[in-house]
Amino acid sequence: MDLGMLQIHDFNELNLSFNSLFSERSKMSVRDDLESAGVQISTVHAGAHGLAGQRSASIALSSSGGVWQDKISSWSWMLSGFLLINVIILGCALVSGSVFNGIQVTSDHVQFFLIALMIPTVIWMVFYKVHTFQEDEAVLYKDVHAGPVWLRGGLVLFGLCSLIMDVFKIALFVGYAHCDSPVKIAFPVVQAIFLLVQTYFFWLHARDCVQVQRIITRCGLMLTLATNLMVWMTAVTDESLHQTVYPTGNITQSSCNLTTRVSASSENSSCECSYQACSIFEKAYYYLYPFNIEYSLFASAMAYVMWKNVGRLVDDHQPHEHRFHLRDVLLGPVGGLVLLVGGLATFVVYEVDVVLDEQQKKEAALTIYYITNMVTVAVMTAATVAGCVIYRLERREHAMGKNPTRSLDVGLLMGASMGQFTVSYFTIVAVLALGVDGTVNALNLALSVLTVVELLVQNVFIIEGLRREPHHESRRASIFSNLLLLQAHEERRSSGVLTPRGSIALPVHKPLPWKRKLLKEISAFLLLSNIILWIMPAFGARPQFDNPIGTEFYQFNMWVAVVNIGLPFGIFYRMHSVASLFEVYLKS
Amino acid sequence: MDLGMLQIHDFNELNLSFNSLFSERSKMSVRDDLESAGVQISTVHAGAHGLAGQRSASIALSSSGGVWQDKISSWSWMLSGFLLINVIILGCALVSGSVFNGIQVTSDHVQFFLIALMIPTVIWMVFYKVHTFQEDEAVLYKDVHAGPVWLRGGLVLFGLCSLIMDVFKIALFVGYAHCDSPVKIAFPVVQAIFLLVQTYFFWLHARDCVQVQRIITRCGLMLTLATNLMVWMTAVTDESLHQTVYPTGNITQSSCNLTTRVSASSENSSCECSYQACSIFEKAYYYLYPFNIEYSLFASAMAYVMWKNVGRLVDDHQPHEHRFHLRDVLLGPVGGLVLLVGGLATFVVYEVDVVLDEQQKKEAALTIYYITNMVTVAVMTAATVAGCVIYRLERREHAMGKNPTRSLDVGLLMGASMGQFTVSYFTIVAVLALGVDGTVNALNLALSVLTVVELLVQNVFIIEGLRREPHHESRRASIFSNLLLLQAHEERRSSGVLTPRGSIALPVHKPLPWKRKLLKEISAFLLLSNIILWIMPAFGARPQFDNPIGTEFYQFNMWVAVVNIGLPFGIFYRMHSVASLFEVYLKS
Repeated sequence: MDLGMLQIHDFNELNLSFNSLFSERSKMSVRDDLESAGVQISTVHAGAHGLAGQRSASIALSSSGGVWQDKISSWSWMLSGFLLINVIILGCALVSGSVFNGIQVTSDHVQFFLIALMIPTVIWMVFYKVHTFQEDEAVLYKDVHAGPVWLRGGLVLFGLCSLIMDVFKIALFVGYAHCDSPVKIAFPVVQAIFLLVQTYFFWLHARDCVQVQRIITRCGLMLTLATNLMVWMTAVTDESLHQTVYPTGNITQSSCNLTTRVSASSENSSCECSYQACSIFEKAYYYLYPFNIEYSLFASAMAYVMWKNVGRLVDDHQPHEHRFHLRDVLLGPVGGLVLLVGGLATFVVYEVDVVLDEQQKKEAALTIYYITNMVTVAVMTAATVAGCVIYRLERREHAMGKNPTRSLDVGLLMGASMGQFTVSYFTIVAVLALGVDGTVNALNLALSVLTVVELLVQNVFIIEGLRREPHHESRRASIFSNLLLLQAHEERRSSGVLTPRGSIALPVHKPLPWKRKLLKEISAFLLLSNIILWIMPAFGARPQFDNPIGTEFYQFNMWVAVVNIGLPFGIFYRMHSVASLFEVYLKS
Repeated sequence: MDLGMLQIHDFNELNLSFNSLFSERSKMSVRDDLESAGVQISTVHAGAHGLAGQRSASIALSSSGGVWQDKISSWSWMLSGFLLINVIILGCALVSGSVFNGIQVTSDHVQFFLIALMIPTVIWMVFYKVHTFQEDEAVLYKDVHAGPVWLRGGLVLFGLCSLIMDVFKIALFVGYAHCDSPVKIAFPVVQAIFLLVQTYFFWLHARDCVQVQRIITRCGLMLTLATNLMVWMTAVTDESLHQTVYPTGNITQSSCNLTTRVSASSENSSCECSYQACSIFEKAYYYLYPFNIEYSLFASAMAYVMWKNVGRLVDDHQPHEHRFHLRDVLLGPVGGLVLLVGGLATFVVYEVDVVLDEQQKKEAALTIYYITNMVTVAVMTAATVAGCVIYRLERREHAMGKNPTRSLDVGLLMGASMGQFTVSYFTIVAVLALGVDGTVNALNLALSVLTVVELLVQNVFIIEGLRREPHHESRRASIFSNLLLLQAHEERRSSGVLTPRGSIALPVHKPLPWKRKLLKEISAFLLLSNIILWIMPAFGARPQFDNPIGTEFYQFNMWVAVVNIGLPFGIFYRMHSVASLFEVYLKS
């Protein structure tokens, strides 16, 4: 927008004062319009003089820089997008090369590529902290919905596990230093630094809506995203290859003589560890791989949200405060706790029994695992369906307006559920095709079908729950009050009588009715059940490998790929669900 | 929004008359707000009384149905999304099963699944035509940007080829009818009907913004999308398997004795065709496979756009009319034509020489092919860079406002370019890893690198070009005129003098300056060059297989998968680019 062309250089500060026939929201969207038109809004004083229905907003338009901002926004978007595409596709080619070729392109090359990504990412993060963030008006707003506590907590938790993994890796490859590539040691060292810096960065800055140096910031964030996706891709590939080479079905047992694979890429399988404890480190670090995969997914999600928030001017209205209390609910939490404890017991039994070589014990372990999960999922489905029915009965309005963070949240939820869907559908096809013979297979099939149904209804329940307006004492349905304000305004105009604002406030406070109580019970129950469904796969239960049907039906490498890509998303999904259900609980 | 709750049942028609401090656009977005709040806007009379700077809009609010519409919108969105996810993932599992297992799940099962998808899709399309479309106010607006002529034309062209393919398939499998599954005949019959109905449907209705029966319509469109994606996935898999079984490197030669694979799945490789012409049909229909793949991509894009448009109330302002003439340009079209003719000649030589068994002739053909493409791509890159420089010099403002169709267009362009990126990067990694020895490899590498650069700058050029405001005589920079209106309004208020509107109209008409002329030249040139880059792969040039480096480096099935997924997107990208460049040409 070439404002210069119009010779309005001189009125840098143009005070607009307008009658508010519009709701707060439509004013927001007008602001968005101006914003997207490259007009920089420095200060918005939205003094709401309720009585008169009159609002004034003084918007300071800085005409210089408008064109520039617009161009920068467009460029930063494109540049960072291209950066991501190029890094990811080049990375894909390298990883594919190392898997399918393995001679000219080895895992060393891939690790070198990762190092070459991590170092600039770390440098950018330090630069952001030291320079960008210190600039004037660098961060005018913080997106209160971004970087919720479960995401940051998960990042720290999984980051810690990944850090331990790196320490083990360093210790292990120091033992091979005399005969293996130095990249093998350099990589975990760089990764450890990367983990520390990145976790610190996201802990502090995940909510920033950066306004300055947009090109650098957007590119930096996309670089971060690309790096994390590459780490994820490499970790999944490594894990899958590892399991393909040693398909004993159990990760904890199979990593005994890993050296052949680790050094195979360096073409010196005669390379031996220089000290004794090597094998322990190997076992340990392969056990920690899944945490690193989760960490990368978490960091990717946060980088993406932050990238979306660059240049965004969020309305600084705080989210509705809800007090958390369990006063009104009883059945839900108790039921959830029962499932949680039962699930934990099953998990322990399963983990102990499934590693045994006896076929019978293994099958018994699988049977118990499937039955517990089936019961959990079936009860959850019933509860969720009941919740959806209550939604239909309770005619609460949807929250107004586009909420980018909510859309993003819903998108992440739907996307993450695809992982679990994939594993379930692949299982269903395999069991049906091979013919359902034996209890274990029948249970496996039933669990998979139930899981698909549960995922569907739970997604509906959560999305509906998030979309609804919260019940809150001080909440006012802003658009109604505005419509009424308008009406009042017109009446006043014609009659000359001032209507006091008090009469148009719409308090929605009621004693907790049965519908709300039931919704709270259901949310609490689902929350706890999702925790147990998260714990089992997150801490190593892999019935998908312990039950040979998947590996029999699909070839082993295909099945390993499906499970290793699908399951981490499933784990992410459960954590995300827990957080979303907590929000639904508070809103109900 | 439960308007009933507020006892405003009675003022169904609420006339809002407001001072327009806002541009046309911000009024639009206010309307969007109301709309998303479930308020149905029946008529908007935006009579712009320019002189006074006063605009009135009477918005008829029909309060009943608001809640309902909102709920329906939300439900239709979720239901159709889940439908797509479930069908696609189940399809993935089936296709994977048929590839990796092939005994319990065969291609017959997959084809049966496809039939089970196509029949409801066809039924829905007929239902839409007969019932939904006939309802009152079913389609209030048509999205003039959706379903452009190149997309519809491409759909018809590729649909025709796919239809011929189906005829060949029917003829072929009739010959196997005595010993092969009847599904093999039923599938092409159903697909032919599906092709006819779908092409007719999209030809007539691609631009519809459907307002009624949203749940059914959204689900129907997602079913259509899912069906097309499944057809695409199956076609890519079939094509890849076919090439993997007969890796002679050339599709036209390799399909001579296809029966073994076709019938392998039915476990009766002794099955023989009952008449002589079979092998011709086989050759013919495998040659037509790529067109079917393209057709599915086109149909998917159209179904997705139509799905996005359900419930959308597009502003009925027509797109700027541009007259197309070549008066002002000469160099660009001539240069483009030279490249086009040169490319066609190379293509013919290549296709003739590359099928020969002589290694030397083959290499010569590849060399010529690479050199022609390199020259084309290099000149294109130079021209595009020049175009980007002119963009920087020419300070034209960006078009205002969110244009969903444009965003979608840009998204499709970026997405489709990923295919070409993938093939190029995989080639680069392979050549670099194997070491660049020989002219052919060096040329291959150079071409791939140049292609990556060309794709990047061309994307930037097209996106920038599409975002700019068109030069048009009658165009007025609405937001400026509004800012000026405001200024005028305030001046008038203080001085009491009416400013005639004539003084604030901003005609941008000038004789074509050198910058615009150059931009037109560049667009025309790029348009023609993209056509030749489209023709070569679309009509069967596959240097990726004729040059053995890809199959050597990655294993054969990996490379076949990469090329078979990447290339069709590359072809789609070139067609899309041609259309977008035409628009850029008109706008310049």
